[in-house]
Amino acid sequence: MVNQVQKVDGSWQSCKSDSSGASNSGESSRESSRCSTPGPDADRADRLREKMRRRIESGDPWFSLEFFPPRTSSGAVNLISRFDRMGFGGPLFIDITWHPAGDPGSDKETSSMMIASTAVNYCGLESILHLTCCNQTKENITAHLSKAKRLGLKNIMALRGDPLGDSWEEEEGGFSYATDLVKHIRCEFDDYFDICVAGYPTGHPEADGYHADLKHLKEKVDAGADFVITQLFFRAETFLSFVKDCRAIGITCPILPGVFPIQGYQSLRQLVKLSKLEVPKEIMEVIEPIKDNDAAIRNYGIQQAVEMCKVLLDSGVVPGLHFFTLNREVATIQVLRQLGLWIEDPRRPLPWAISAHPKRKVEDVRPIFWASRPKSYIYRTQDWDEFPNGRWGNSSSPAFGELNDYYLFYLKSKCSKDALLQMWGEELTSEESVFEVFTNYITAQANLSGHKVMCLPWNDDPLAPETNLLKDELEKVNRRGILTINSQPNINGKPSSDPIVGWGPPGGYVFQKAYLEFFTSSENVTALLKVLRKYEPRVNYHIVNVQGKNLTNAHDMQPNAVTWGIFPGREIIQPTVVDPVSFMYWKDEAFALWIEQWAKLYEEESPSRMIIQYIHDNYYLVNLVDNDFPLDNCLWQVIDDMFDLLDAPPELEVDTVY
Amino acid sequence: MVNQVQKVDGSWQSCKSDSSGASNSGESSRESSRCSTPGPDADRADRLREKMRRRIESGDPWFSLEFFPPRTSSGAVNLISRFDRMGFGGPLFIDITWHPAGDPGSDKETSSMMIASTAVNYCGLESILHLTCCNQTKENITAHLSKAKRLGLKNIMALRGDPLGDSWEEEEGGFSYATDLVKHIRCEFDDYFDICVAGYPTGHPEADGYHADLKHLKEKVDAGADFVITQLFFRAETFLSFVKDCRAIGITCPILPGVFPIQGYQSLRQLVKLSKLEVPKEIMEVIEPIKDNDAAIRNYGIQQAVEMCKVLLDSGVVPGLHFFTLNREVATIQVLRQLGLWIEDPRRPLPWAISAHPKRKVEDVRPIFWASRPKSYIYRTQDWDEFPNGRWGNSSSPAFGELNDYYLFYLKSKCSKDALLQMWGEELTSEESVFEVFTNYITAQANLSGHKVMCLPWNDDPLAPETNLLKDELEKVNRRGILTINSQPNINGKPSSDPIVGWGPPGGYVFQKAYLEFFTSSENVTALLKVLRKYEPRVNYHIVNVQGKNLTNAHDMQPNAVTWGIFPGREIIQPTVVDPVSFMYWKDEAFALWIEQWAKLYEEESPSRMIIQYIHDNYYLVNLVDNDFPLDNCLWQVIDDMFDLLDAPPELEVDTVY
Repeated sequence: MVNQVQKVDGSWQSCKSDSSGASNSGESSRESSRCSTPGPDADRADRLREKMRRRIESGDPWFSLEFFPPRTSSGAVNLISRFDRMGFGGPLFIDITWHPAGDPGSDKETSSMMIASTAVNYCGLESILHLTCCNQTKENITAHLSKAKRLGLKNIMALRGDPLGDSWEEEEGGFSYATDLVKHIRCEFDDYFDICVAGYPTGHPEADGYHADLKHLKEKVDAGADFVITQLFFRAETFLSFVKDCRAIGITCPILPGVFPIQGYQSLRQLVKLSKLEVPKEIMEVIEPIKDNDAAIRNYGIQQAVEMCKVLLDSGVVPGLHFFTLNREVATIQVLRQLGLWIEDPRRPLPWAISAHPKRKVEDVRPIFWASRPKSYIYRTQDWDEFPNGRWGNSSSPAFGELNDYYLFYLKSKCSKDALLQMWGEELTSEESVFEVFTNYITAQANLSGHKVMCLPWNDDPLAPETNLLKDELEKVNRRGILTINSQPNINGKPSSDPIVGWGPPGGYVFQKAYLEFFTSSENVTALLKVLRKYEPRVNYHIVNVQGKNLTNAHDMQPNAVTWGIFPGREIIQPTVVDPVSFMYWKDEAFALWIEQWAKLYEEESPSRMIIQYIHDNYYLVNLVDNDFPLDNCLWQVIDDMFDLLDAPPELEVDTVY
Repeated sequence: MVNQVQKVDGSWQSCKSDSSGASNSGESSRESSRCSTPGPDADRADRLREKMRRRIESGDPWFSLEFFPPRTSSGAVNLISRFDRMGFGGPLFIDITWHPAGDPGSDKETSSMMIASTAVNYCGLESILHLTCCNQTKENITAHLSKAKRLGLKNIMALRGDPLGDSWEEEEGGFSYATDLVKHIRCEFDDYFDICVAGYPTGHPEADGYHADLKHLKEKVDAGADFVITQLFFRAETFLSFVKDCRAIGITCPILPGVFPIQGYQSLRQLVKLSKLEVPKEIMEVIEPIKDNDAAIRNYGIQQAVEMCKVLLDSGVVPGLHFFTLNREVATIQVLRQLGLWIEDPRRPLPWAISAHPKRKVEDVRPIFWASRPKSYIYRTQDWDEFPNGRWGNSSSPAFGELNDYYLFYLKSKCSKDALLQMWGEELTSEESVFEVFTNYITAQANLSGHKVMCLPWNDDPLAPETNLLKDELEKVNRRGILTINSQPNINGKPSSDPIVGWGPPGGYVFQKAYLEFFTSSENVTALLKVLRKYEPRVNYHIVNVQGKNLTNAHDMQPNAVTWGIFPGREIIQPTVVDPVSFMYWKDEAFALWIEQWAKLYEEESPSRMIIQYIHDNYYLVNLVDNDFPLDNCLWQVIDDMFDLLDAPPELEVDTVY
């Protein structure tokens, strides 16, 4: 059997060239890896150094972002929101510095380790964790690396680290050089980690001169480092001649310039002190006169960084730019926008954010229930060994993690208790006051006390643009006690590039079945069930209360695909399903949020608390799917019919044919 | 964690009843199992006795068909086509008798074992293999059963069998009673097989009377038989009182009446002699006067069987009817049609026929290339341990079986060499005469010598109704040497019940990307490749010659889903894909068919043979997919553009922008 297809470097290619002159365009038609593609494609599965290789080959420059761990737990919540926001711009990776003073390898929510883990697992960002030799034994270091591996981290920036005192003191049984750390990582973990090391364009302050330091860099690379990120510098020439010198002594790996947009006078002084760098005279001459004008300095910093970066990119030797963000957004994003590197309209590879944990790299199906709580979904499935791929299936419903920690920091509300009370009501007087909160959330109108309802226990953020398409209908039904927490319109083949509902690679079509999920009273449910008989088999429903009483017409309890996409040259992707089994796990979480996030804002035994408790104890959680996606969504008609039935005089009800 | 969903009897159901009066309609909304459903659903995975249980519960009577093995290999080819045709009518199962004289357990293409295996594996029919104790040692019997299991057979009809001589002689180390055979099967194979035993409504001819025989039946059932099929009888009362007597002594399993539509005078006499039954006087009185009028006897037999079956079905104790077909179609189908049991418009669970081998029960994705050669696909994948389910994936491309047996009887052409020569030409004079054969196949017109081309080496049957939709375009391009062997139109959401392109459960929508596969000359391919650049990324192509030179624009060599369906309450089904890796296996088969089925019809060195050999050696096999399924199929435009380019004067060609 002659089979000329061969597996080359992880992807299938034909191995014969075409003698007739037509070329195999398989390689040239490959999309830039910047535009991620759904499903288990090569790019998503690649390790960082492979992603870099692809980008270098296609001449597609990238950027990356450096952050330091926060000091407080509310700082952590803020930093993680920043990861989400800055992740949209399309960094190739981010990196988290190692703060020896902050218990960096611990389970604290502010530790370097946990911040990097959150970035990977919950924000879906390719991340590098820094690690220094400072004050650590070999055993410590191995333990940190093992933990990082267990958490799904795949990249380490191996550093000696700054001495804690004035000069370096060797730790007994530890390392004094980053080279030793690199060797140790390769020795203990083989090729598991991608390793980055630091380069010093003006030489390391403690090295015996520039050339001795270059030699140290060569040793680090030879010991197994995959690429280099440099310390900051102020002139493009500094970096370019450094790269030239590196190449001259045989350093061939990617060398990324560390870019520091000047953001203020104090932060510049501090950084210069720490890094023992000298700020060029021409820069100091501009800055000194405006040192008290923060905005002016920042504008100058942006302009200066943009100009330097342009020179770097034009040189042809810089594959990507690394930004020291100082955990701030504005300056870096401005620079990236002016360089045209910031992705303004990020293409979503799937309708939900993909976790970057290597175990999850094939994951492409999730239940729709956690659409507004993706971090909770990731948390509750973190112990799964395999993730659904292609099809959810009945077999893909293993146990979800327990609801044992509502205070898990990345599930915390971004709002204070006071802010929540202002939005959700200092005092509730009836179920209707709860209806009003839901309605105000939908309409984004201020409530009676003048506050907009920006979130609900089930929805951390204001209404998604897609849900906005349903705003009028949602408002109408919430007013009457259909307390919606999740919904999507039906879509019959919109382009995958659609700015609101699109996802996946270009040239495809996305589809949805209409979905509506809400809490409502048992009286409403009784009427609803009568009405639903008219809609068999068009509408599938699952109706459950907190005790687990479960009413459904799901065929054999199979999952129902409610979002799918058809793309050129690919198999079908169906990233969200309504899965009856998972729904029973979700309902525990959905009901618990009434108590944990809302009722507990009020005193025990207070009327407000008792109203929420009543709803928790007596309402049903309902989900409805309209299977007839090419027709107009019938779910609003279902709700209308339910209200008509409820509004009908009792003597008429028996005559109504249902 | 409270989770009220429980797995009951293989399917997921809620376990609490609804105190508010609304009922869980999960059970009542289950479709009848007659209408098979795609994907790995409960019904498809069920064993025969479970299917019977479901049908009995839903009050949905079935029919089944008995065949005997053929004597000759051409008889086998005919019988297998009959399985395909009669399978469309929707039998719950078929059964194959055990012919001790015909080496029934051997690998001969005419053996009981191989015919049953073909029915299961290639025709996708639930099948029962008969097995008798006759002349067999225990070891023989175990070996037969092991072989049956290995071949994917799941059901055995355990019989003593008729004595070879005048009276029964016990085989040393064998069994004398069916009861012992049932016990042996259960002892050696536990619960693997579903076991059927024979019932004698008028008592076994060798038993000590009717009641002694009933006792034997009870023993067989107690030994582990799952259901009973009776010997034929001529009056409904005979069967109904037999069932009553069985129930009275505690036989509770299903009892299926064996129905024999009288089809001719001689076959009736012979059967009566064999079965030692007496034909009732009222029947003989009708038949004797018309004994030389076959049609009259058959019509009477049909009428008599219909009337008897109506009485049986009306009795409420008959869950299904078993027909002794004598390997004939007409009478049985007539009876079933008149009873309303024959499915006139069979719903296809998937676009291709599903194999009934238990290993393949989850299979729901196949490459499109074998669409017209499904038996070859099954043959070449028979050794796979797992079958693609939900997604083809790159990983689902293990080795296909070798092309080592073109004479495998179920891949044989149904036509004789003479018939093939009449259709494909006694003498070919040029490549154009080959184009003409293809064109005549498409148009279903007689060729110059007056014969219709009913098949091609790649297409056993005349054009499918779906392909007929493309007839005009296909004719046009075949005339010019685009020798099409596989194609499908694009479909943007037709109802799953569509009589031509529909498949899967009701209420769904089916979709297709346009597909075209053809052989063509290397000159055409050169022009085609230029033209295809204009159609990036809309059109995916794979172009390969017999040496394996492979030209493609497939992204990372991923499979492309070209048929899919969206159904109420289910995940997406995508039953056919264009898989680049499988295509390389298919091309070997596709090219080999030129030689094996066509060239070899002619003398070696003859011009006709050399023309086919030339095409085999020089043409390319091309497949094209138009990814933009909602738009008009652009593949005809691609071909037109190719011809325009070829027709353009050479001096103009360089100016043409491609």
